[in-house]
Amino acid sequence: MENSRQNRHRSDNQKIVILRWGHRPQRDVRLTTHVALTARALCASGFILSDVEDSSIEKTVKRIAERWGGNFEFSMGVSWRNAVRDWKTAGGVVVHLTAYGENIQTSNVLGKIKSLNKPVLVIVGSQKVPGDFYSSEVSDFNVSVGNQPHSECSALAIFLDRFFEGKELAKEFDKAKIRIIPSVRGKKIQTDAETSC
Amino acid sequence: MENSRQNRHRSDNQKIVILRWGHRPQRDVRLTTHVALTARALCASGFILSDVEDSSIEKTVKRIAERWGGNFEFSMGVSWRNAVRDWKTAGGVVVHLTAYGENIQTSNVLGKIKSLNKPVLVIVGSQKVPGDFYSSEVSDFNVSVGNQPHSECSALAIFLDRFFEGKELAKEFDKAKIRIIPSVRGKKIQTDAETSC
Repeated sequence: MENSRQNRHRSDNQKIVILRWGHRPQRDVRLTTHVALTARALCASGFILSDVEDSSIEKTVKRIAERWGGNFEFSMGVSWRNAVRDWKTAGGVVVHLTAYGENIQTSNVLGKIKSLNKPVLVIVGSQKVPGDFYSSEVSDFNVSVGNQPHSECSALAIFLDRFFEGKELAKEFDKAKIRIIPSVRGKKIQTDAETSC
Repeated sequence: MENSRQNRHRSDNQKIVILRWGHRPQRDVRLTTHVALTARALCASGFILSDVEDSSIEKTVKRIAERWGGNFEFSMGVSWRNAVRDWKTAGGVVVHLTAYGENIQTSNVLGKIKSLNKPVLVIVGSQKVPGDFYSSEVSDFNVSVGNQPHSECSALAIFLDRFFEGKELAKEFDKAKIRIIPSVRGKKIQTDAETSC
């Protein structure tokens, strides 16, 4: 990848927000919650549940963020068109994750996104997204994480892991009330200033 | 990582099977389906739904595999204890994915697993797995994909992406009846010998 050192430096501070489209309350609660928690754990700055509201997801995400720390913004109910328009107006770039897009492994699409050094809005849809999502009016890039059907949760995870070059998995979260101490065996938890097993 | 070239060569052929523990029919259908499809799309060899049977998952996974190709083995109903015992008896290594384990980013746990060059059984659980899972009688390695709560689906995706060093996302699947042609815009599908848009 060209400019890998420069990109690495840039991506540390490059803002990413995830927009989840097509959520169906009740039916999609667990999956969308996993997408939101993946976004938070892998150092996205925020999550937008577009077009609908679902207080159960908001509650879970805020509870986790309160306990495990960090600065993760959650919003819901905004229309995806307005969110995309506002993001672009503010100078950001829009990435649509889709199995049909440019393959993150076999193309240099990720390098191109990073080299722009702009805030990134990642649209995570479902199988049947509006055709508009593929157009340049909406997405600056259509990115596929492999070209097989699998999971928007997995696709987002790999996208973020590659975008941040793995460093997101080593990050300490500010204001955490609870931390895991990685261990060969068993569970080690640190709560506030104490360590327990 | 030591011996990276040697490990890269080895991992291309190193067999990985995913064991999903703790599935609850109905409640977990979609999430477990996403875990299974992630396993298949990211080039695991097979998937074991342990301790329970769920024909809806079997049906979906087999339908996808039939259409999109590859050689993905699906089984269900076997007890996790028997699956682990049989795997170890056959000379395989067992990896337990857990937020409490050795961090895949900050430790060399992945290098150690790959350098063994043995078939790998990856146990994907849920929040409350039996304590036995952490013990050496069950898991040879406890691996965390970050130490924040997120999703077993995401954790598996990143584990496989790193294990196969990204090459799994470029793989062509044998006997596919349908293929996606990666595209900057729109959807391009190839069915059998034809290409359509």
